[in-house]
Amino acid sequence: MISWKNLDTLESWQALARKADKADLRQELAGEAGAERVRKYAVEMGGGLTYYYGAKQVNDGILQGLAELAGEAQLSEKFRALYEGAVINTGEKRHVLHHLTRGQLGAAVTADGTDKRAFYTGQQRRIAEFAEKVHSGVIVNEQGEKFTTVVQIGIGGSDLGPRAMYLAMENWARENGSFRMEAKFISNVDPDDAAAVLKGTDAAHALFILVSKSGTTLETLTNEAFVKDALTKAGLDASRHMIAVTSETSPLAGSSDYLAAFFMDDYIGGRYSSTSAVGGAVLSLAFGPEIFARFLQGAAEEDRKAAEKDPLKNAAMLDALIGVYERNILGYPATAVLPYSQALSRFPAHLQQLDMESNGKCVNRDGERLNYPTGPVIFGEPGTNGQHSFYQLLHQGTDIIPLQFIAFRRNQAGMDVTIQGSTSQQKLGANVAAQILAFACGREDANRNKNFEGNRPSSIIIGDQLTPEALGALLAHFENKVMFQGFLWNLNSFDQEGVQLGKVLAKKVLAHDTDGALKVFSDLLDI
Amino acid sequence: MISWKNLDTLESWQALARKADKADLRQELAGEAGAERVRKYAVEMGGGLTYYYGAKQVNDGILQGLAELAGEAQLSEKFRALYEGAVINTGEKRHVLHHLTRGQLGAAVTADGTDKRAFYTGQQRRIAEFAEKVHSGVIVNEQGEKFTTVVQIGIGGSDLGPRAMYLAMENWARENGSFRMEAKFISNVDPDDAAAVLKGTDAAHALFILVSKSGTTLETLTNEAFVKDALTKAGLDASRHMIAVTSETSPLAGSSDYLAAFFMDDYIGGRYSSTSAVGGAVLSLAFGPEIFARFLQGAAEEDRKAAEKDPLKNAAMLDALIGVYERNILGYPATAVLPYSQALSRFPAHLQQLDMESNGKCVNRDGERLNYPTGPVIFGEPGTNGQHSFYQLLHQGTDIIPLQFIAFRRNQAGMDVTIQGSTSQQKLGANVAAQILAFACGREDANRNKNFEGNRPSSIIIGDQLTPEALGALLAHFENKVMFQGFLWNLNSFDQEGVQLGKVLAKKVLAHDTDGALKVFSDLLDI
Repeated sequence: MISWKNLDTLESWQALARKADKADLRQELAGEAGAERVRKYAVEMGGGLTYYYGAKQVNDGILQGLAELAGEAQLSEKFRALYEGAVINTGEKRHVLHHLTRGQLGAAVTADGTDKRAFYTGQQRRIAEFAEKVHSGVIVNEQGEKFTTVVQIGIGGSDLGPRAMYLAMENWARENGSFRMEAKFISNVDPDDAAAVLKGTDAAHALFILVSKSGTTLETLTNEAFVKDALTKAGLDASRHMIAVTSETSPLAGSSDYLAAFFMDDYIGGRYSSTSAVGGAVLSLAFGPEIFARFLQGAAEEDRKAAEKDPLKNAAMLDALIGVYERNILGYPATAVLPYSQALSRFPAHLQQLDMESNGKCVNRDGERLNYPTGPVIFGEPGTNGQHSFYQLLHQGTDIIPLQFIAFRRNQAGMDVTIQGSTSQQKLGANVAAQILAFACGREDANRNKNFEGNRPSSIIIGDQLTPEALGALLAHFENKVMFQGFLWNLNSFDQEGVQLGKVLAKKVLAHDTDGALKVFSDLLDI
Repeated sequence: MISWKNLDTLESWQALARKADKADLRQELAGEAGAERVRKYAVEMGGGLTYYYGAKQVNDGILQGLAELAGEAQLSEKFRALYEGAVINTGEKRHVLHHLTRGQLGAAVTADGTDKRAFYTGQQRRIAEFAEKVHSGVIVNEQGEKFTTVVQIGIGGSDLGPRAMYLAMENWARENGSFRMEAKFISNVDPDDAAAVLKGTDAAHALFILVSKSGTTLETLTNEAFVKDALTKAGLDASRHMIAVTSETSPLAGSSDYLAAFFMDDYIGGRYSSTSAVGGAVLSLAFGPEIFARFLQGAAEEDRKAAEKDPLKNAAMLDALIGVYERNILGYPATAVLPYSQALSRFPAHLQQLDMESNGKCVNRDGERLNYPTGPVIFGEPGTNGQHSFYQLLHQGTDIIPLQFIAFRRNQAGMDVTIQGSTSQQKLGANVAAQILAFACGREDANRNKNFEGNRPSSIIIGDQLTPEALGALLAHFENKVMFQGFLWNLNSFDQEGVQLGKVLAKKVLAHDTDGALKVFSDLLDI
């Protein structure tokens, strides 16, 4: 029997909070014992990745306490309920089924009269067939020529995740003979966004994907109109250049404005939709359906790991537990995501949505105000760029910001040079290794301006190379981590009521139905 | 006589802290009085911009207290000392002279035997002449053909600021007949970064700018070698494709490896270098020197405003004071920068460096540990994209995150469509106006999940259009804000000792001079 309780009512949590222990990393990581700790504090993930947490401020006692917390909070049971179709999204009264896009972890889930796994794989097959026809020249433009570019029109989860995944795979695909079409993205309602993308695009050979679950997202429909206008002005037939990704009940679903429509449903939130048709269409067109399938396999493998009950064998669960420890007991306000891989340049922006939109809530699942901190601020940029930017604050600022490093042994492009006795790839790896120790252990200096206090915790996910499987596992890891944290904080990670009020007021402004301060701002902006 | 004192020792600060007052925005912004407040709480900036702070949690009493604090902390006097050449960067014993790249605010400053304003304008003239020769085809490639692309190789301040400025002006320049050459940027030591840029670049017609003040930045030299290797393999003479921006004393300065070298000096930190030769070379090549000159004019105009003693007439000073109030009295841990302009897509990343590297310090100017919070975490993405991402946490999360909006009445590209009765530009403006009120005033709902508590403070900078002058003013505003906050916190905003330890340890890793935990991580990364 699952029971939903606030974090601070759990006995195992109260015990942890009473102790308020933390490991002194300067001691824990010293000498041969430190080396042993790094090797031991590791969890195998999917996709050939490993999660190392030896530079987190935990010890065996704290880990034991966190394992008890995982049990008392029923993290495994709640995950199982979720993937077997419980209505976990209580606010919107919906199932939460993104795991089914990449595997069947438990019993079949039927909703809307359909087996949902079969529904998602059916859409994948339809997308694969369509993509293959585009690639082979069966589906072509008005002139009978192949499409060379795909442009996704979407915002939020229909943009950030798919864009981050595309960028993560672009160079890998070019190196591995899997690059089929360039992908571009239009998201912002600022007309400068669509204008710039269209200027750089050969519209006659471009296929546009309109992505909106409801078919009513105003920014996306506006950008669609912007694109159609440009296509028409260029003498092109827009309906031969557009496909839709939407729900079966949306106004877009049966429209003749689109070459084809592929379907998602209400059980997959935007920020969890990269493995659904939302990511599937653009990624299958860009890299071929077989690469998208490998990406799903990596995610599925990681999901299976996340179903493991023992948090010491479940990286997503452990990461979630340590994160809550840092947020609620140690009081750290933010987390930095620092991939030492240029291909992951927009991965932090995706995690920012995933995490902050899921867990940036101040009420619990029953709508009661929570009196403990929930989701932290998430930000990040690729290393080594970040080192030359905001790392100063991370090393010597007055707040402690936990760090999530990501690194690979090999780069994607296969090009490299040796300078001063080492390759670029070695320099990249050396930097992240060095940073972990610099943050954790610091260095005393009589000149306090050059003093490093240390005890700035980090974890690192290491893989061999950023492949489709590794990327899928990485994505699923963070999705599952965020889910477990939502369970711990006893909130609904799957709605986003916080975005509604702004929409309502924006409509009033556009209808000129305003007064007072809102009217002044509207006037100042010439609306 | 200037005296440097910790914030918490100032009487005016103690008085503010004792009151710990804050305005209730739900009341302050209501009705006609709210409209009047918005109109009144406004400061004219340079470049045609205005800073509106009516949605900040201040009132006349708090503003009076902040004005007293500005006086007691001698903000104006310290700024004057800085621009007249005092050694404000005490850690490195250096002047701080970036304001001189765009104007002469006070008495002449002589250093290294030169009038520094003359030195900077001299470099601007040299760059302008060089750029004109490139544009007119006097300086050409080996085949006598014009260069069409410029690629900046730099990291940190040699990358983030110039890149953000380039993106901010690219579409404006295309629309206004000022687009001369496309610019690209290589920064990360990850070889995938340089490989991807080179793959998309016609190297035979590309001019590369190597930017390193010291001439020893390892990432940048590595990327230079990477590029030279590619040029040589393509049968090109690298020395005819490269220029350098460096200091006169660097090993690069007199090298025959470069077509030309343009100079910066030790008195301009990387993160303050967009208006120096670091930004000047790439922006003058991309858009023409006259556009760069207009950008400098906007910055100069804003600098003059920042020299105003009354904080109610000095947006940078007021922004700094309110920010410190929010950080140190109201206890807010982070600030989000939210430009409603796609052109400013990387402006938050630049501000992240500018702010976090300048003020992420825990010791004061005398090297004593501070016992109050200093620089906050800075993050952001363009609206409306952010609305569909992390705004959930901003509206309903457990922490309050102050917001900095930026918006313009007109877009850059001049293309637009009307959908559902409004243009994209109107929708963009309507959204930002709506967000300000949604955050400030909230909306009560019996369903706590749909309840908005309000009192989430923001300010907005509004301009007519993002022109070179507006961009210059915007940049200078934040530079000066960060400087004033450094004065308030009594720290040195102009060094970055926090980045050193990582460099030292990375060298040890590359030399295989490690043991213990560091060796384990090095081995895991195959170094």
